[in-house]
Amino acid sequence: MSYAMLMERVGELNDLLNAQSILTWDARVMMPENGHETRSKQLATLSAVTRDLLVSSDTCRLLEAAEADVNQLEESSAEKAMVRQVREAFDYNEAIPADLIRKRTELSSIGFSIWAKARAESDFSLFAPALEQMVALTREMAEAIGYKEHPYDALLYLYDSQDTVTTLKPLFSRLREGILPLVQAVAEKEPPRFDFLERDYPLDKQRQLSLIMAEKIGYDFARGRMDTTLHPFEVSFTRNDVRITTRYNQNHLPTSLFGTLHEVGHALYEQGVDPAYTRTPFATDLVGLYAVGGVSFGAHECQARLWENFIGRSRRFWDVHFQTVQDVFPEQLADVTAEDFWRAVNRVSPGCLRTNADELTYDFHIMLRTDIEAALIDGSLAVKDLPDAWNAKLKDYLGVEVPNDTAGLLQDFHWSSGHFGNFSNYTTGNVMAAQLLETARRDEALATGLEAGNYDPLRRFMAENIYAHGRRYNRDELLVRATGRTLDPEPYIAYLNAKYADLYGL
Amino acid sequence: MSYAMLMERVGELNDLLNAQSILTWDARVMMPENGHETRSKQLATLSAVTRDLLVSSDTCRLLEAAEADVNQLEESSAEKAMVRQVREAFDYNEAIPADLIRKRTELSSIGFSIWAKARAESDFSLFAPALEQMVALTREMAEAIGYKEHPYDALLYLYDSQDTVTTLKPLFSRLREGILPLVQAVAEKEPPRFDFLERDYPLDKQRQLSLIMAEKIGYDFARGRMDTTLHPFEVSFTRNDVRITTRYNQNHLPTSLFGTLHEVGHALYEQGVDPAYTRTPFATDLVGLYAVGGVSFGAHECQARLWENFIGRSRRFWDVHFQTVQDVFPEQLADVTAEDFWRAVNRVSPGCLRTNADELTYDFHIMLRTDIEAALIDGSLAVKDLPDAWNAKLKDYLGVEVPNDTAGLLQDFHWSSGHFGNFSNYTTGNVMAAQLLETARRDEALATGLEAGNYDPLRRFMAENIYAHGRRYNRDELLVRATGRTLDPEPYIAYLNAKYADLYGL
Repeated sequence: MSYAMLMERVGELNDLLNAQSILTWDARVMMPENGHETRSKQLATLSAVTRDLLVSSDTCRLLEAAEADVNQLEESSAEKAMVRQVREAFDYNEAIPADLIRKRTELSSIGFSIWAKARAESDFSLFAPALEQMVALTREMAEAIGYKEHPYDALLYLYDSQDTVTTLKPLFSRLREGILPLVQAVAEKEPPRFDFLERDYPLDKQRQLSLIMAEKIGYDFARGRMDTTLHPFEVSFTRNDVRITTRYNQNHLPTSLFGTLHEVGHALYEQGVDPAYTRTPFATDLVGLYAVGGVSFGAHECQARLWENFIGRSRRFWDVHFQTVQDVFPEQLADVTAEDFWRAVNRVSPGCLRTNADELTYDFHIMLRTDIEAALIDGSLAVKDLPDAWNAKLKDYLGVEVPNDTAGLLQDFHWSSGHFGNFSNYTTGNVMAAQLLETARRDEALATGLEAGNYDPLRRFMAENIYAHGRRYNRDELLVRATGRTLDPEPYIAYLNAKYADLYGL
Repeated sequence: MSYAMLMERVGELNDLLNAQSILTWDARVMMPENGHETRSKQLATLSAVTRDLLVSSDTCRLLEAAEADVNQLEESSAEKAMVRQVREAFDYNEAIPADLIRKRTELSSIGFSIWAKARAESDFSLFAPALEQMVALTREMAEAIGYKEHPYDALLYLYDSQDTVTTLKPLFSRLREGILPLVQAVAEKEPPRFDFLERDYPLDKQRQLSLIMAEKIGYDFARGRMDTTLHPFEVSFTRNDVRITTRYNQNHLPTSLFGTLHEVGHALYEQGVDPAYTRTPFATDLVGLYAVGGVSFGAHECQARLWENFIGRSRRFWDVHFQTVQDVFPEQLADVTAEDFWRAVNRVSPGCLRTNADELTYDFHIMLRTDIEAALIDGSLAVKDLPDAWNAKLKDYLGVEVPNDTAGLLQDFHWSSGHFGNFSNYTTGNVMAAQLLETARRDEALATGLEAGNYDPLRRFMAENIYAHGRRYNRDELLVRATGRTLDPEPYIAYLNAKYADLYGL
C-alpha cells in the first residue's frame, strides 16, 4: 500500500518532469519571439515545484513506509530497485541546498549571455569572472553531494553513475594509445573528394530525405514528430511522445542527413522503453530531475552515435542506400558513386571545433574537455590558466593551433550554464556502441540484416538489451548482461582501425 | 512583505496555469497520435498540483498575513483588489471537496466518449445515464460552492460573476421581444445568393488570407502564432504568447475567414492586458483555475463577436476589404461585388445547429440552452424529459423541427465534460459588444477610422476600456466606466434592427 502510494507520487513527478520538457520543446520549436520573457519563469516554477515535491516531508514519509514494505523482497526485484532509486534521488537532491540551486540558476541565466558576448568578441577575459564564480558554486555543489575520491566524481555521477576520474583515466589512456597512430597515419594520405557534399541541396528535398532515412531505421512517427531548429535535439514526454529536430544547411547535405540519424538514435532508445515502466522510477531521471527513459547520458550517446556513425557512416550502409539519396538529388549527385559518397562523409580533418569533428578525432576533443573540467573542479587548474592549458592540449593531441578564443575554449556554452561532467559520455558512448555492435554482429540474422539494409534485427537487439530496460540497470549492468563484461575500449579501437584502414588504405 | 510573498505565490500559480495551457495547446495542435495515452495524466497532475498549492495551509497563512498588510489601504487600491481576489479564489476552491473534483474529472473523461457514441448513433438514451450522474455531481458542486437564490448561479459565476438566473431572465425576455419580429420579417424576404461562398478555395490561399486579415485588425505575431485545428480556439500563456487556430473548409470560405476574425478578437483581448499585471491575480482566473487575462467568458466573447460580426460582417468592412479577398481569389469571385459578398455572409437561415447559426438567430440557441441548464440544475427538468423540452423550445423560438438527437440535444459536447453555465456568455457578449460600440462610435476619429478600414482607434478604445484592465474590474464595472451603465440590451436590439433592415429592406 505504501509502495503503491510512493509509486503514485513518482508518477506525479514523471508528469511534472514531462511537462517541463514540453515547455522546453515548445520554447525551442514553436514559441513566438516575445514568449521568452515569461517562459523562463514558468520553467523555473515547474522545476522548483518538482524538486519540492520530491524532497517534501510527505514524500519522505511515503519513502520510509515503502522501504519497510519491500524489505522482505529479493534484492533483484523490480519493486526493490524502484524504491532504492527513489531513495537515491531523494538523498541526492536533498543534499543540495535550495539556496545553492537558486544561486547557480541565477548565475546560469546571466552566464549564458556573458559567454555569448565573450564568444562574439573572442575574448575569454570577459567570461573568466563569471566562470570563476560558476566553478566555485559547482565545487560547492560537489561537496554538498559528496564523493569518494575526486570532487568531479559527484558531477560525473549525474550523467553516468558508472564513471569516475579513476575509471576514465585508464580508458582515455588506452584510447589515445590506440587511436593517435591512426590520426597520424591518415594525415599522410590523400584526402577524398567531397566537393559534391557542398552543392545546392534545396531544404524541402533535404527534409524529404530526412523523413525517409528516419523511417528506414525505425523511428515511429505515430509517437513522434520531426521539426526544424538551429540546434538539433531529441526530447521525450514518455515513450508515447518522442520528438526530434533537424537542422538544414542548403550547402552541406551531411548536416541534416547525419543529424537526423543521430537524433533518431536517441529517439529509438526512448521509444523502446518498456511500456510497463511508464510513470515509474525506471522511466525518468529522478536524480537529475530530467524526463529521460535512457539510463545515462553515455548510454544515450551510444545509441545516437551507433546509428549516426557505426551504421550511418559504414561502407555497407551507402552501398545499399546511396541510390535513395541519388533519387532525391539526381543532379547534385550525378557524378558521384556510392563509394565516393561513403569516403566523403568519412573524411578526416583535424580542427579546433568539437561539433565539426570527424569520427576519428572527435574523442580527443572530449578527452581534452574532461581533463580540464576535472582539474578546474579539484582546483589544480585556475580559470586564468585555462586558455593556455586548452590550446596546449589541442596542439598536443591533434597538432592543431587554436587561432583565437572563439575557436578555442569559448566554443561550447556548457560551462556558462553550469554544466560540468557530461562531455566524457560522448566517448564512453562510442566505446559502448562498438562493444554492443561486436556482440550483436555474432548473430547471423542480424549480420545478414545489416548487409541487406534491414535494421529491424539490430534495433530489436538494442531494444531487448538496452532500450526496454529504461533506467532499471546501470550502464555496466546492461553491458555485462549484453556482452559479458563492463566497458571495454578494445572493440572500439579495433573498429576504428579496420574502418580507417579500409578508407585510407593504411 | 507578506503581500509580496503572497504575490510571488500568485506568480507561481500563474506559471502553473500557463504550463497547463501550453500542454493543452500542444495536445490539440502538435502532439503525435499516441501521445494522448500519457498526456491526460500529465494534465491531471498539473491541475491537482495547482489547486493544492492554491488551497494549501501555506497559501492560507500568506493570505491572512497579506490581508493584514493591506488592511489600511484604500478599498479601491490595486493591492487590496488583488488580495481580495486571492481570498475569493481560495474560498471558492476550498469549498469544493477534492473528492468531488476527482469524481467529476473521472466522469468527464468517460462522459465525452459516451456522448460521442450516442451522438454517432443519434440516440440520446445512450447518453442519458451519464448525463444524470453529471447533473447530480454538478448540483452537489453548486451546493458546495453556495449561492443566494438559484443553484445555477454558483455555476454561472465561474464564467461571469455578474450573471444570475434573476438578471438573465429579463435580459432574455427583452431580447426575444426585440429580435423575434426581425426573424419573422426576414423569413418572408428573398434570400441573397451565396453560391460563390461554396466554390473551390484552395487551403493555402485561405491561410494567406487569414494571415492578412489577422494582421489588418491588429494581431501581433511577435506574440502569437496561427495553426490549424478542426475546432478553432484561442489560448494564452501570458500576454507575450497568445495563440490562435483556424479551421479551413475548401468549399466554404467563411469558415476560415470569420473563424480567424473571431479568434483574433479573443487574442487582441489577451495581448492587450497591462504588462504590469503579468503573473498577478489580474492576469489569470484563480477562481476557475484557468490561464486567462480577460475578466469573464462573456467579456471575451464580446471581443470575439465584436471583431467577427459587428466589424467583420459590417457593410463598410466589405466595401473596404472585398478587394483584398478578390485579389487572393480572383477567379472564384470574378462575378461577385462587395455588396453581394456582404449580403451572402449575413444570410439568415434558421436551423438546428448552434455553431452554424447566423448572427440573427444565434441568441435563440443560447437562450434555449441556458434555460434548460438552469432547469436541470434546480431539478425542475428531469434528464428523461430533456429531448421534448429541447425540441419544443427550438420549434417555439425559430419554428425549426429537430429531425434527430444528433441535430438536437446531442450537438454540443459541453455537458459530457461537466461544463454548465457558460452558454449565456455568448449572448451577454453580443449585448456588451453593441453597448461598447455604440459609445465608441461617438468618437469622431474612431468612426472615421472604421469608415476607412483603419481599426487602430477602435482597438485602442477597447484596449483602454477593456483589455488593459485584465481581471481587475468585473464586467459591469468595466461597462459603467466605459459607457456609464451596466449591461443594457437596447444598443444590441437597435444594432440588429438597423443591420437587418439594411440587409433585407425591412
